[in-house]
Amino acid sequence: MDRRSQSTTTSSAADTGSLHCIVKLGGSAVSCKNELETINEDNLSIVSSQLRQGMISEPSHGMDWSRRPGSTAIQTVVDKFDDKLESQCKRLIVVHGAGSFGHFQASRSGVHKGGLNKPLVKAGFVATRISVTTLNLEIVRALAKEGIPSIGMSPFSCGWSTCKRNIAMADTSTVVKALDAGFVPVLHGDAVLDTSLGCTILSGDVIISHLAEHLRPDYVVFLVSTADQWFSDGYYLCFILTDVSGVYDRPPTEPGAVLLREIAVRDDGSWSVLQPKLQDEVEITVAAHDTTGGMVTKITEAAMIAKLGIDVYIVKAATEHSARALKGPLPHNIPNDWLGTVIRLAN
Amino acid sequence: MDRRSQSTTTSSAADTGSLHCIVKLGGSAVSCKNELETINEDNLSIVSSQLRQGMISEPSHGMDWSRRPGSTAIQTVVDKFDDKLESQCKRLIVVHGAGSFGHFQASRSGVHKGGLNKPLVKAGFVATRISVTTLNLEIVRALAKEGIPSIGMSPFSCGWSTCKRNIAMADTSTVVKALDAGFVPVLHGDAVLDTSLGCTILSGDVIISHLAEHLRPDYVVFLVSTADQWFSDGYYLCFILTDVSGVYDRPPTEPGAVLLREIAVRDDGSWSVLQPKLQDEVEITVAAHDTTGGMVTKITEAAMIAKLGIDVYIVKAATEHSARALKGPLPHNIPNDWLGTVIRLAN
Repeated sequence: MDRRSQSTTTSSAADTGSLHCIVKLGGSAVSCKNELETINEDNLSIVSSQLRQGMISEPSHGMDWSRRPGSTAIQTVVDKFDDKLESQCKRLIVVHGAGSFGHFQASRSGVHKGGLNKPLVKAGFVATRISVTTLNLEIVRALAKEGIPSIGMSPFSCGWSTCKRNIAMADTSTVVKALDAGFVPVLHGDAVLDTSLGCTILSGDVIISHLAEHLRPDYVVFLVSTADQWFSDGYYLCFILTDVSGVYDRPPTEPGAVLLREIAVRDDGSWSVLQPKLQDEVEITVAAHDTTGGMVTKITEAAMIAKLGIDVYIVKAATEHSARALKGPLPHNIPNDWLGTVIRLAN
Repeated sequence: MDRRSQSTTTSSAADTGSLHCIVKLGGSAVSCKNELETINEDNLSIVSSQLRQGMISEPSHGMDWSRRPGSTAIQTVVDKFDDKLESQCKRLIVVHGAGSFGHFQASRSGVHKGGLNKPLVKAGFVATRISVTTLNLEIVRALAKEGIPSIGMSPFSCGWSTCKRNIAMADTSTVVKALDAGFVPVLHGDAVLDTSLGCTILSGDVIISHLAEHLRPDYVVFLVSTADQWFSDGYYLCFILTDVSGVYDRPPTEPGAVLLREIAVRDDGSWSVLQPKLQDEVEITVAAHDTTGGMVTKITEAAMIAKLGIDVYIVKAATEHSARALKGPLPHNIPNDWLGTVIRLAN
């Protein structure tokens, strides 16, 4: 059953005002893929700065007033705040993946398969949530340090749950209230209760698709890294070069690989490449390890969002191209010097 | 308006099964009062162990599988888990205060007074949440390390909000679902949205009283530390000695100070001391700094819970007496060698 046909409790889009953008922060874009539970501080800092610039033009005072390690006092910028009312900010939601946080704990215990009555699964559920909420807190702090009024919101705590891994209950009203109050909700892939399996993993990609459907942002940005690889039934989608990023027609290390700049999704779910004009049909490749549905999920979610009439940008994190995407939306005719992939509804 | 008379959305007590206990972990019992944002590791470790022993008799495998600082790998006890179904655990909720976390950020910005349109208040809201969720994560990790299936749940993320500082919306269904799934929800005092003021602080004491009213635990334990001092209109309530704890008739440093072992609360809110038999009326003392309502709130909440017919134990954290309270309930006739204060409904 498509999860969208299931019972969901959501506030209507009319309540939400105009949501500028939902940003997916790829877990591997802000964590070090090959180092367990390690933040990619440089990338996270650049991404936070780009997000702030996309939201508000002027620099903001820091909002992370935590004690720094080794210090006994808290350095704040409290005195720098004045009483003037803040400038208008664009409404933004951030959703992040797990990267090198959470995956180890989830996979070793099999949380995604359910079975909470088994001690190992229950322990893995607890361990997974500790790991992903640790990353969430670090991302919230990085955004707050930049002056973004970020608020961590765990799907589990929001009461979100699934049935057979499809969203069953995901009330967005708390997210909307946070937006209405001027905050930037920061959600994340999470371990959640599943009414059929006991528990499972709700991925950041499914969350972003659900939020896009119900809150109708102007556009959605997927900030990816070189470590991300997506595959679908039709295309080989890679981000493994150092200076370009987007969706390719084959592994970009192969000769003649072409960056797909604009993909149109039709109502029946079929795709076509609008830019560049390809002479031949692209090679159909499904990777051997594409068995869990994980990789397919990602691109399916992006297509689902595009089918709603919401443009999706897939762009490499912490580059000039991601900065432009976050200041977007981009012009309908994608500038030639912008590198990334736009997925949108076919005319 | 009493907050209980306001509209609240809660699941009925009938859905909850039997809730054994709600434990209030005083912020100053697990953090170092005079060191900003510093955990009292020793106390937290002892408290976690006592909570586990109160919940399940046999030791459990650790559930915090985070990477330790300085290590590149994750040491887990995954292989030690077997497939046997877990032993039955008593149902437990933990609520903690802020201690040396959050207070600085909240007081410097005036979050409790509201006014989210002021940049300083909004920044303070973000900073306060970062600080209290940092403490929450540390407490969840300490409990998980001990083998308690702890799940951090922030009131803000749960969608809880206030109106003029009284609880307006505090759906307990997510907490109940976590309990039903065998987890130990760990809530905390939090910055929340207020429909009248914009925002405020929802204290751990108000949260525990709300949960007690709706989920009807067998009893409630307040684990306090030497740093805690409570005052009410009628009594001077202190916990400042090193080897005894509870509610006293005057500052316990004064000659002749008496530990009040059993206090009865009547329906009209009046109190009387059942044990020990006092010859004179106790001195009425309200401390000079008791102007914010903060101290009064604490004892008011304890009395409110007792008025529901739920026994409240106030006991010093990390002592043999707290261990006995957590294995409770205590016999109706309080053992002579148990040191603490019981507040209960008058017969």
